[in-house]
Amino acid sequence: MKHQVNYTMLCDFYELTMANGYLRTGLGDRICYFDLFFRTVPDGGGFAIAAGLESVVNYIKGLSFDEEDLEYLRGKGCFSPEFLDYLRTFRFTGDIWAVPEGTPVFPGEPLLIVRAPAIQAQFIETFLLLSVNHQSLIATKSNRIVRAAQGRPVAEFGSRRAQGAAGALMGARASCIAGCSATACTMADLYYGCAVTGTMAHSWVQMFDDEYTAFRTYCQLYPHGATLLVDTYNVLDSGVPNAIRAFREVLLPQGITDCAIRIDSGDLAYLSRRARAMLDQAGLSGCKITVSNALDEYLIRDLLAQGACIDSFGVGERLITSKSDPVFGGVYKLAAVEGPDGVIQPRIKISENPAKITTPHFKAVYRLFEKSSGKAMADLVALHDELPPQGQPLELFDPNATWKRKTVRDYTAVPLLIPVFKNGVQVCRLPSLQESRAYCKAQVERLWDEVKRFENPHTYYVDLSQKLWTVKQQMLQKPVSP
Amino acid sequence: MKHQVNYTMLCDFYELTMANGYLRTGLGDRICYFDLFFRTVPDGGGFAIAAGLESVVNYIKGLSFDEEDLEYLRGKGCFSPEFLDYLRTFRFTGDIWAVPEGTPVFPGEPLLIVRAPAIQAQFIETFLLLSVNHQSLIATKSNRIVRAAQGRPVAEFGSRRAQGAAGALMGARASCIAGCSATACTMADLYYGCAVTGTMAHSWVQMFDDEYTAFRTYCQLYPHGATLLVDTYNVLDSGVPNAIRAFREVLLPQGITDCAIRIDSGDLAYLSRRARAMLDQAGLSGCKITVSNALDEYLIRDLLAQGACIDSFGVGERLITSKSDPVFGGVYKLAAVEGPDGVIQPRIKISENPAKITTPHFKAVYRLFEKSSGKAMADLVALHDELPPQGQPLELFDPNATWKRKTVRDYTAVPLLIPVFKNGVQVCRLPSLQESRAYCKAQVERLWDEVKRFENPHTYYVDLSQKLWTVKQQMLQKPVSP
Repeated sequence: MKHQVNYTMLCDFYELTMANGYLRTGLGDRICYFDLFFRTVPDGGGFAIAAGLESVVNYIKGLSFDEEDLEYLRGKGCFSPEFLDYLRTFRFTGDIWAVPEGTPVFPGEPLLIVRAPAIQAQFIETFLLLSVNHQSLIATKSNRIVRAAQGRPVAEFGSRRAQGAAGALMGARASCIAGCSATACTMADLYYGCAVTGTMAHSWVQMFDDEYTAFRTYCQLYPHGATLLVDTYNVLDSGVPNAIRAFREVLLPQGITDCAIRIDSGDLAYLSRRARAMLDQAGLSGCKITVSNALDEYLIRDLLAQGACIDSFGVGERLITSKSDPVFGGVYKLAAVEGPDGVIQPRIKISENPAKITTPHFKAVYRLFEKSSGKAMADLVALHDELPPQGQPLELFDPNATWKRKTVRDYTAVPLLIPVFKNGVQVCRLPSLQESRAYCKAQVERLWDEVKRFENPHTYYVDLSQKLWTVKQQMLQKPVSP
Repeated sequence: MKHQVNYTMLCDFYELTMANGYLRTGLGDRICYFDLFFRTVPDGGGFAIAAGLESVVNYIKGLSFDEEDLEYLRGKGCFSPEFLDYLRTFRFTGDIWAVPEGTPVFPGEPLLIVRAPAIQAQFIETFLLLSVNHQSLIATKSNRIVRAAQGRPVAEFGSRRAQGAAGALMGARASCIAGCSATACTMADLYYGCAVTGTMAHSWVQMFDDEYTAFRTYCQLYPHGATLLVDTYNVLDSGVPNAIRAFREVLLPQGITDCAIRIDSGDLAYLSRRARAMLDQAGLSGCKITVSNALDEYLIRDLLAQGACIDSFGVGERLITSKSDPVFGGVYKLAAVEGPDGVIQPRIKISENPAKITTPHFKAVYRLFEKSSGKAMADLVALHDELPPQGQPLELFDPNATWKRKTVRDYTAVPLLIPVFKNGVQVCRLPSLQESRAYCKAQVERLWDEVKRFENPHTYYVDLSQKLWTVKQQMLQKPVSP
């Protein structure tokens, strides 16, 4: 990809002040473990879709300061010359594990774990959160919208209302991972291989002396799959009749039947039904109807419930900003440090709010699939060095309500986190967008419908192993002395 | 600025299909006028703050296709060889007028006007909307938050929850234009000169054996303005006492009194009052208290109403995403075309929804300031070639309720739109961030308080001149034939 921007300096300034401090106090090389996780699913949903890992990988590989950066930092007057020298050769030398893009994920489990010297592990916080938060937000929202469309294609149309260029570009990519079939954003196709789509704006129709001439001209230029925007003047009185005339005069004589109309305003349920009848009566049953106009998963569900005759959807601002819930609250918390002896010492962040207490230690995450149904039953967060569950009967319990217990049998345990970097070297192949898209679809199909519904979804189990739970309880009862 | 990305390909694909069509049909050189305007103020506010022009200028100046772009487009199979040749030397050769960044703006008036050959004017739609929508959104939200803080500094802390890298970076810049005093985003300082700020995360405290050592070490490293985060364990039982001890043992012996504590969780009103009393009692009346934790304009207003002892605010996700209303609905509509004779022909977009009917023609916008008070009284949208209001008594009327009339006297009329490009050449100097910030502050001060309040603000008058209103009415009664 051309125009690759180096985002090393897209850090919170405190990451630099702390880094300088760690170097000065000899803590800089202390090996730390950080977990990236989230606490609640946007829109009250039952699960989120993880995304953003490709951006993280590109960022980590490019991590380095140039002379301009160092000159700028020197000018701040608060960094030691040793620190600025240290930054000159700064690279990421640690390890990262992460869930693949497109994985359904749940509150409280790490989506990504970093093991690295303190300065490095701390420094990358902002960009990692930014990438995973933004792209998981849009993937999660897009997947809801795609599911509401019940198999009808959904195209992402939101660039013009996105929060910045990366909002448009990485948002389009995330929406494709989560199931959108296309995007209007040309650059997202050029860079990431999202299938691009687009036909005409109202201004095309306004540029011609009349609507029919605008439609006929368009059909002559783009006969295959011509999509005519029929709401510039009046959908039923002029748009659809003019579209029918153009299709019949230009396309049918060439034997072309794949065409479409787009309705971008008005009562989409009513207009689509009336337009469908007019098209069918004109012998254009192959003509599809696509609609747009501030849609989201709820409006799409309602349209289909009303029997709207809609073949596909274009979704813009409410997808590309996740308008109804535009923040994905991923956090990045210290979970452990290694002592000089190499022993891992767990760390915990206490809070008066129990939901904000972190789970300490270096962890592994397993998803347990029921063998008979293939469905995901629960996720288990364990200590990194525990034996993985091997199919033996396993007693799970709610970490906050330990009397809620359940023994699972007949399962397969799959590790969720895969190694991405080892000693600073990328050790996994990044899948293509189409691979991530197929993986996401397959993984969402392995969730029970109860987890997928929009209203009051079932709370999927994310449980701690007995050993990890015990470590946490011991630390809660005797936390690190303040 | 290094890393300047060329965003030519960040367009909606339909801009390319239409452009190809305009070239093929001989409409490509037809001079068009497009207005960029919005219909409603986010959060029900009384005005918005315009931003995004610098991004627009950089985009326009860089507009060009390279061989990789052309190869990609050729591969789509739907563009003529003549069109691809045409793109090879594609540049913007038109005119642009816009309001300066930081200007308070109102629904229904153009923030930006483009006059250019059809292909160019149409092609730039997505990037112009994207830039102005995003940055005006964040500037508008930030200005609300800054006003709620009643003179106390507000720092932007939201990068980690921003919607993509540009969301963080351009959002930080927009927030500074609108009055934020600083940002945590290092890159926004490096590139745009937003003042950067940052001290420590909870992980700094957790890295040391105890909280006091963490604080003392920090004060030794950064004695001037040291800000200690006091809520890792317990604000009142441990954080504030340890901070007091570190300030007294490290800073006071050096005669340093500028220091601060930050509270990032809990009941900020209660904790800040208690912390203030403890600091004062310890002789640290110069120690400031800053707070953060999912703040916005409403929470800040409430905190101050409760008598919280807060000197400054850090605001993150609710600012950087404009969480309560994350879409700025700017649109880009054809307003006129020039005939072969050079005569400007107005164009209108009709809609069943009266709010969506466009105002036709090439326009000028004037802001009328009352001479006696200096306050803005109304904006007047007129035909481009009408004589500007010269101070004579002027009868304004509501364009939708024409019986609402008011004669203004004793005013100065200031044109809002300034020339930015003429024949493709930049003709205005871009102000510095600090100039835009000062301009924004001064212009917001010229609005009446009734327009600035959060609840049911007064609807500021944006009226049409008699001539423009007459053109619109004539077109509504006899629109362009569909």
